[in-house]
Order: sequence, then structure tokens, then C-alpha cells
Amino acid sequence: MKILLSGFGVVGKAVIQLIEEQRSKLYSEHGLSPSFVGVIDSKGAAIDPRGLDTSLLLETKEKQGSVGAMPAHGIRDAKELDIIAESEAQLLVEATPTTVRTPGPSLERLKAAFRTGKHVICVNKAPLAVAFPVLQELSRHNRCEFRYSGTVGGGTPILSLAEEVGRGSEIVAVRAILNGTTNFILTKMDREGWDFDTALKEAQRLGYAEADPSADVDGIDTATKVVILANGVLGRPCTISDVKIEGIRGVTKARIEAARKAGQAVKLIARIASDDLSVAPREVAADAPINVGGSLNCLSLELKTGGEVSLIGRGAGGPETATAILRDLIDIWHSVESHRT
Amino acid sequence: MKILLSGFGVVGKAVIQLIEEQRSKLYSEHGLSPSFVGVIDSKGAAIDPRGLDTSLLLETKEKQGSVGAMPAHGIRDAKELDIIAESEAQLLVEATPTTVRTPGPSLERLKAAFRTGKHVICVNKAPLAVAFPVLQELSRHNRCEFRYSGTVGGGTPILSLAEEVGRGSEIVAVRAILNGTTNFILTKMDREGWDFDTALKEAQRLGYAEADPSADVDGIDTATKVVILANGVLGRPCTISDVKIEGIRGVTKARIEAARKAGQAVKLIARIASDDLSVAPREVAADAPINVGGSLNCLSLELKTGGEVSLIGRGAGGPETATAILRDLIDIWHSVESHRT
Repeated sequence: MKILLSGFGVVGKAVIQLIEEQRSKLYSEHGLSPSFVGVIDSKGAAIDPRGLDTSLLLETKEKQGSVGAMPAHGIRDAKELDIIAESEAQLLVEATPTTVRTPGPSLERLKAAFRTGKHVICVNKAPLAVAFPVLQELSRHNRCEFRYSGTVGGGTPILSLAEEVGRGSEIVAVRAILNGTTNFILTKMDREGWDFDTALKEAQRLGYAEADPSADVDGIDTATKVVILANGVLGRPCTISDVKIEGIRGVTKARIEAARKAGQAVKLIARIASDDLSVAPREVAADAPINVGGSLNCLSLELKTGGEVSLIGRGAGGPETATAILRDLIDIWHSVESHRT
Repeated sequence: MKILLSGFGVVGKAVIQLIEEQRSKLYSEHGLSPSFVGVIDSKGAAIDPRGLDTSLLLETKEKQGSVGAMPAHGIRDAKELDIIAESEAQLLVEATPTTVRTPGPSLERLKAAFRTGKHVICVNKAPLAVAFPVLQELSRHNRCEFRYSGTVGGGTPILSLAEEVGRGSEIVAVRAILNGTTNFILTKMDREGWDFDTALKEAQRLGYAEADPSADVDGIDTATKVVILANGVLGRPCTISDVKIEGIRGVTKARIEAARKAGQAVKLIARIASDDLSVAPREVAADAPINVGGSLNCLSLELKTGGEVSLIGRGAGGPETATAILRDLIDIWHSVESHRT
């Protein structure tokens, strides 16, 4: 299978390394033999319809800062949309980092891929947050596969587990903790008695939170995941502008203390129900499965039968996201194969 | 699809009711049109190669105590193994209750089904506990599908979720709470300060525990599920005689108190690792996902990548088990269809 990789940072590199590590297993177990016919980074691109030498790709990126410097196959000032449209690749892997404020470039790449009949694996949440219904329509119209399991839960296969639960029972509502950074901060406030600023500084010191923590603490990151779950699992068309968003900057020590006294904990809860699409700090029962500590994520599905199923795991990380991409790749490969026969 | 149903108690009746409720959806969404060509209960059987009238089946069972009394199609003193072998059914649903001490009759029914090329859905844990490797071999040899998702976690699709996780990452160890009754007892001992006998009596009063609570409190029920997980998900051939089993009768108030002081809780933990196949009361961290309360079940999968994924849901119940059977039925139907094309 010929792959075009867009984005060659932590995730892109991890994908190539993981595929090389598993190459013989992918072939023996799935009959899948991936080759990278193009790689696009922020400064250039490298193209070879016969498949690029992946060790040379990694080396060039490491030493020269861009695959555009690659001998014979490198292109500086590449027009990426033309490269995508003209590529012989069957599949685009969009592995650029999420930039919620500027979803445009990534969205254009996905559209260019679908319009030229390419399957897409996307781990950038920005285009999905602003245009999920459009992308889904475009992928169906062009009979392309569209997967994005790396966007929610990182290495924890939250989306496919939710789909699996929904296959046997009707999901009537979702309650979830989908951002590890805010959960770390709220857990520290609860267990150590810290205020928000102290907990945020500690999260930044440990590398959990960015210097500009807005995407996490203002609930934006969680809201993008709400959009992906609502569209992708519950079949409910929406974009991030439909989500009511409140972050955790306003959560006080007093509120957390009061919750604790009432046998509760304050969590940044994503909620999807017929009358609700929101992200907000909410009190949950201290002994409920959703009261997970540290940087864990949790997805609780309320079923029509009255039961509730919860999934708990770590959220993010480069290697975990690469694992999710590989899982999507195997799924797409099997789906393409089964349509061919 | 022609179905032979063995066992017409709570689960068997719920299966027939659920299928009738969902009949039009099963056809429109999956092209699946199930018919019951035979039903066997403890006192007789009813057979009709053209499909039995399910409302008459339920009415006869209700009024006369056995489907053997059904006009035209009822058989008293039915030889069930002959009925299975000679049935035109493509699939046997084994919906009899688990009787760990006498797995023989159920095991013989499953063998009779496989030997005559019938797919099997089984919710009776007894034959799986004593002969899983043999049954798996027999199903493969006869190219039959073999599903048993109702045996673990009831309506919570624990087995398929575990398979889904294992598809992308290697599972190196499993830690689980798989019996709601013992978890209810241990939770009451922890939170109410009760001793074992008081908590057991309350569980019996509420109908969670049987008059003879041995299968639950001595860890036998959990051990059967360990065997099913080890064979079915981790591909590790074993039977219940390979499982080291210790129940919760010996758990004292003092031990629970000591655990609580150390920030822990005592749980009946099923453990599967390369050097361990056991059921025993163990201390777990109070804030770990596996410390679930009440009658909840939890499966924690330790992954090779270092992460851990936990699934939490209710364990058992007639309607939940029927849902699991229906899910298996749909899976088998799609699998059979894809082999046909």
C-alpha cells in the first residue's frame, strides 16, 4: 500500500519507525506491505513513486531539518496540495500537530486527498473539529476510508471500543474525561489542596501542559474530541461551534473542598446527550468509575438497557498515536481487500 | 439462519423475545432472518424444520412447564443428542445455566453440534471451564464458529473489547474482577464495616447470591472466566484445573481494615500473566481503576507498551446475556456470509 505522509514531527517519525519495526509481521499476518511514496514536512517534501528509503528520510530530517534536502527526491518550496493531488499514494496520513486556531491548511490537505480518491488517516483534531460532517460526506462520496482513532485517547482505542459497545446496545449518553492535562491539575487540586495556578505550574514543569495552556485548560482540546465522538460514534453531525465550552480556570479550592465533603470530585466532563453537547467542570461521585486520577482518560457510555460501560486508559503520547495510526492502516487495508474480492 | 436452542429458562426466553423484538431491524440492517427449528428444555423438546411459532413456544412453556407439550411439534423424553445431531439447524445456542460440578451434559451437546457442522453460541461456562482447548480444536476442525461472549461480563462486551485492545497492542497481563456477588460482599465489608457472614446474608437477601453461595464466594465462577479469557483472548490453552483458586471466605474485617489504612482495598482478583493463572483476594490501590464498588466488574489489561486499559461494567443478568447472544449471532452471520462470497 502506497502512503503519503503529511507531517514529519514526533508522530510522523514514530509512524515510520513503527512500520519498519513491524514490517515482516504486517506482511505475514495481514499481507500488507506499506511503502512511503511521499513525505511532506513544514519546509519541503520528498517524493519517490517506487517508495522512499525510510532510513535516509529519518537521517535527512535529523541532519538537515527537512526532507526537502533529500538527494534526488527532495523538493524545497513544495506545493503540498499539488503533491497530494498528483501523488500515486492510495492513502494520506495526516500526522501534523493539532492547531485549533488554524485548521485551514490541514483541512485543505484532507479535501485534496479525498477529491483524488485517497483514503485518509488523520490524527490532527483541528480539521475534524471544524468540518467533520463535510469530511465524512466527502469521504463517502469518493468511496474513501476515513479513520482518526489517534485523535481520541491516544493509544487507548476509545473510539473503536465505543463503536464495539454501540454495535450491541444503543448508546443514549456519553460522559467522559478526555484531557489528561486538566485531569492532572484537578487531581492535584483535590489531593494536594493546591490552587489552580500552583497545579498548572507543576503540570507545565512536568511537560504535561504547554507554555500557552489555553487549548487544555479552556476546554478546547476536550471540545474537539466531543465533536469527533458525536460525529464518529454517535452519528450526530456537529462542529465545535455547537459545543458549549467552559474550562477549568474558574474552579476554586473552595468548590473542590465542598465537593470532597459531599463525597464528590470536580472533573472536566465532556457530555453528549440528546439535549446536551458540552464541556464543563462538573461534580461526579467519588466512587464512580469516571473519577479517575492523574492524567488518565475515561469514557462512560450510558446504554439504553440501563447499564453503563466505562473505559479507562492513558490519553496521549507519540508512540501511542503511532500505534493508533498503524491500527487504522490495518483496518483500511482489510476493508479495501474485502471490497476487492 | 436456522437455530436450535438448548435451555429455555430465563436466558433462553429472553433470547427469543429479543430476537422477535428486533426481527425487522435484524433483516433490514444485516439481512439476517433467524428461525428457531428446535428448542430443548429439561423435560422435552419441540421441533419444526420450517421454524417454530415463538409465541406458542413461550405460551406452552409458561402454561405446561415444557415445550415438549407443544401441539404437533412437541416431544416428551427427547433424546437431545440425537435431536442436535439430526437437526437442520446451522447453529446451536447453548443457553442452559452454568453447573460447574456437572459440565458433562452441556459438553456433550456442544460436541454433538460441532461434529455435525453446527456453529455454537454458548453462555454456559461449565463446558468451557473443563474443556476449552478441546472445544476450540473441534470447532476449527469442523470449520464452525464458536462464540461465548455472554460468559464473561454479561451485557458488557468484555471479551470483544479485550480482543479489540489486543489487536493493536500486545497484552502481557490481565487483572480483573469478574464476579459481582463477591465484589458486592467485599464492598459492603469495606464501606459498612460488616463481617463476611453479614455481607453474605445481605447479598442472599437481595438475590445477588444463591442459597448455596459456593460457586461465587469460593472463586469457582471467577476461575471459569479466567479460563475463558486465557484461552479465548490470550490464546493460552488451559482448563480450570490449571487455575490456583482461593475464595473470599477467609477475608477478615481486620485484613480489610488494614488495607484501608494503607490506602488499599481487598478485591477478589483474577490474574493472568506468563507465570500466573489465579483467583485470590488481593490488595489493590484504592485509587486504581480496578477498585470498582458494588456488583461491578472490571478488566484491566496491561500492555507491552507500558500502558494499561481498563473496562468497567455490570456483570450479569438475563436480558444482558440475551444481548450478548444476539451480538454473537450477528457476528457469526457476517462471518458465514463473508466466507460464502
